[in-house]
Amino acid sequence: MSISFQQFDAYVDRHADEYVRRLQALCRIPSIAALGGAAMADAAAVVAELATTAGLDVELANAGGPPVALCQGGSGSRGLLIYNHYDVQPPDPLDEWRTPPFAAEIIDGVLYARGVADNKSNVVARLAALEAYRATVGELPLRVACVFEGEEEIGSLHLARFAAEHADLLRSMDGCVWEAGYKDERDRPVVILGLKGVLSLLLTVRVMNSDAHSGYGGLYPNAAWRLIEALSTLRSADGRVTIDGIWDHVRPPSAAEEAAMAAIPTDDEAVQRRKGFSAYLGGLTGVDALRRLMFEPTCTINGIWGGYTGQGSKTVIPAQASAKLDIRLTPDLTPTIAFDLLRAHLDRRGFTDIEVIEEEEGLMPARTDPTAPVALAAIAALADVHGIAPVVEPTSGGSGPMYQLCQAYGIPAVSIGVGWAQSNAHAPNESMRITDYIEGIKVIGRFIHRFASA
Amino acid sequence: MSISFQQFDAYVDRHADEYVRRLQALCRIPSIAALGGAAMADAAAVVAELATTAGLDVELANAGGPPVALCQGGSGSRGLLIYNHYDVQPPDPLDEWRTPPFAAEIIDGVLYARGVADNKSNVVARLAALEAYRATVGELPLRVACVFEGEEEIGSLHLARFAAEHADLLRSMDGCVWEAGYKDERDRPVVILGLKGVLSLLLTVRVMNSDAHSGYGGLYPNAAWRLIEALSTLRSADGRVTIDGIWDHVRPPSAAEEAAMAAIPTDDEAVQRRKGFSAYLGGLTGVDALRRLMFEPTCTINGIWGGYTGQGSKTVIPAQASAKLDIRLTPDLTPTIAFDLLRAHLDRRGFTDIEVIEEEEGLMPARTDPTAPVALAAIAALADVHGIAPVVEPTSGGSGPMYQLCQAYGIPAVSIGVGWAQSNAHAPNESMRITDYIEGIKVIGRFIHRFASA
Repeated sequence: MSISFQQFDAYVDRHADEYVRRLQALCRIPSIAALGGAAMADAAAVVAELATTAGLDVELANAGGPPVALCQGGSGSRGLLIYNHYDVQPPDPLDEWRTPPFAAEIIDGVLYARGVADNKSNVVARLAALEAYRATVGELPLRVACVFEGEEEIGSLHLARFAAEHADLLRSMDGCVWEAGYKDERDRPVVILGLKGVLSLLLTVRVMNSDAHSGYGGLYPNAAWRLIEALSTLRSADGRVTIDGIWDHVRPPSAAEEAAMAAIPTDDEAVQRRKGFSAYLGGLTGVDALRRLMFEPTCTINGIWGGYTGQGSKTVIPAQASAKLDIRLTPDLTPTIAFDLLRAHLDRRGFTDIEVIEEEEGLMPARTDPTAPVALAAIAALADVHGIAPVVEPTSGGSGPMYQLCQAYGIPAVSIGVGWAQSNAHAPNESMRITDYIEGIKVIGRFIHRFASA
Repeated sequence: MSISFQQFDAYVDRHADEYVRRLQALCRIPSIAALGGAAMADAAAVVAELATTAGLDVELANAGGPPVALCQGGSGSRGLLIYNHYDVQPPDPLDEWRTPPFAAEIIDGVLYARGVADNKSNVVARLAALEAYRATVGELPLRVACVFEGEEEIGSLHLARFAAEHADLLRSMDGCVWEAGYKDERDRPVVILGLKGVLSLLLTVRVMNSDAHSGYGGLYPNAAWRLIEALSTLRSADGRVTIDGIWDHVRPPSAAEEAAMAAIPTDDEAVQRRKGFSAYLGGLTGVDALRRLMFEPTCTINGIWGGYTGQGSKTVIPAQASAKLDIRLTPDLTPTIAFDLLRAHLDRRGFTDIEVIEEEEGLMPARTDPTAPVALAAIAALADVHGIAPVVEPTSGGSGPMYQLCQAYGIPAVSIGVGWAQSNAHAPNESMRITDYIEGIKVIGRFIHRFASA
């Protein structure tokens, strides 16, 4: 880096209380996407105001859902896309929260609020970084376009439409900072270079016109048994997907990706202890477990139900049974391919009676090359602030609309952010450490500088 | 038969309207065992009054639940036990009834009411037969003991205690007429000589301390998959039970039982059409299907649940999953043996984490020899009234507390009664034809005479 960030850091530290107050104000708006209502526009307005304060031009775009705040500024040959969302998950179960989920209280340096980690702190931190940069370093050295949507927690229903309507802008972008990022269990900063795709399915089978007396259990078809027979063919007990032909679409890790995995510190036993089990499926450990997590498709029963599920016994043969299933997708394995493979797999085995429907539109996998400028800039910026090389993960095991906003328009994307190992995203007592938040602002300042000049 | 039943029949026909009114009065009492309350004692009191009218001595015994009406009369060397229950199933779903379930309305010769077929019509018909017998033939030619309980629909919780407290009386009985019986799809009268036993189980598995993000689906244990893996080992797709060692306890049909099965008219396609499927499990038909129904154990999933079962998708790994299972038991295969075999089967395959508990106390299988006097009397009585040989079924596919009241005290038992193919027991629009009811009274009169003198 050719410039010193001493002034920038001093400015951020001087305004830390103000940045925390801004975050608390945003966290106090219950912008629960699943509920919608006035809170969505309220949150979008606060975000727009923060963006204006940061010197950006703000447009509240209507793509069919809550407003998408498109905030642009800066100039230069390089274009940076910043993606975040101002909506949050529902806060229930409420009785497990130590503070009210929209009170945004700070206890021992930790801010508790629904949505603080996922992902309002990153919204405010990134805008604060732009503001501090302009106040101390000067005008932004690249073109910045921030996209703040309000439907991420319900499947980003209108993001693809927004993207299509802003295709030229997106095609002019050179890299994206994705919504979230965190420090790992040992407080090492993490850069994530991709997301898995996901296909969410509902399988239903109906075998007769009504439930029947289980005295006929040896003769009549049983929807629960039938569903189990079909599901049993999809995955082996060691957790490996066994859908016919799916492995033909799985791209093995490159040498660079293998090297990246080998460099990731793991502590399998700590994770297992925290979750209350003793081994990963198939006995996988270390790099083998990472390979399963990052480079292999998964097939997960999310829920299953059928027949009598109340108190006591009811000797009935269920006429209908269902399962919700998600298939996580690796690069080259699109939702369409996975769906067709599953359908053919079931049909080939005579399970034509198992109805399979998509619960919502599938998400494509997305992956960024570790040598892309946006990745290198993120790695360097984290190293600058934390003094250690960050952990680089080729992908998260999770999914998101990264492909439809970024890769579909040729934009490599990285996830960095201010979460920690106990952020409890989507869970009670969602939280963020104030120190991580302030550090995260400093990281973004350096990232902008490095990405502009890389 | 040495006497004519002309006078008996004329008496029954003359009192037919009165017998229907008595039945309606009993059906209008909502004696739902699952709800309990004052209706139980009300129903017991009406039954006691009918028994008194029939000339029996009535004792309302307290065995810990609703009253058990023990009604005795007659004299002679032979003892006849009559078992019925005055309790009924809950009537829901209410909106599927064409008449209110406790209105006991008659439409086109069919009485609709919850409990009319299962089994208040048999209570009233049997007592009416005793009354008519005494009014026309003379004093009862055998000792009669009627046991009318009020907990059959919730597992006969206190019947074993009642039986133990009346062991001497039960040991003095030579045969039993069991609660229910029916005409088949082609209106042929049926005699049933046994019941299967049943073991009702709850299987539960918990694999971690809370649900987890399905991004980790390839690594973390999943309770739904785990349960499915275990269940898949218990039954093959053709419906045959595959629990280790269970077939060592299955007694094959005797030559007499094979002959009885061969004589049973079947209409598999009619049953399948009515239920809305196209074939029995394993493609079984005719005698092979009867053999599965009557002489083989079954393993039926009654219900299954785990994970997210609400609207839309939730990409979660379930920490816990459960299934309700019933195992129907053939003679020699007791609930204890079946439970121990299942536990050992699971343990042997490493499924020690699957918790198995009995939902309620298991019921023993019960079987009566087709040449027992009580069976011969029932067959002859049905032939007398209907003019055709009845269908003789070695056993029902269903279960009941027959063993604990009868076989445990050396009493052979048969099921005959006034139901029809559309009785809809346990279902909306439970019904009974008035003509079947009056015929059934005439059958019992002849049965008493034949059994006393056989």
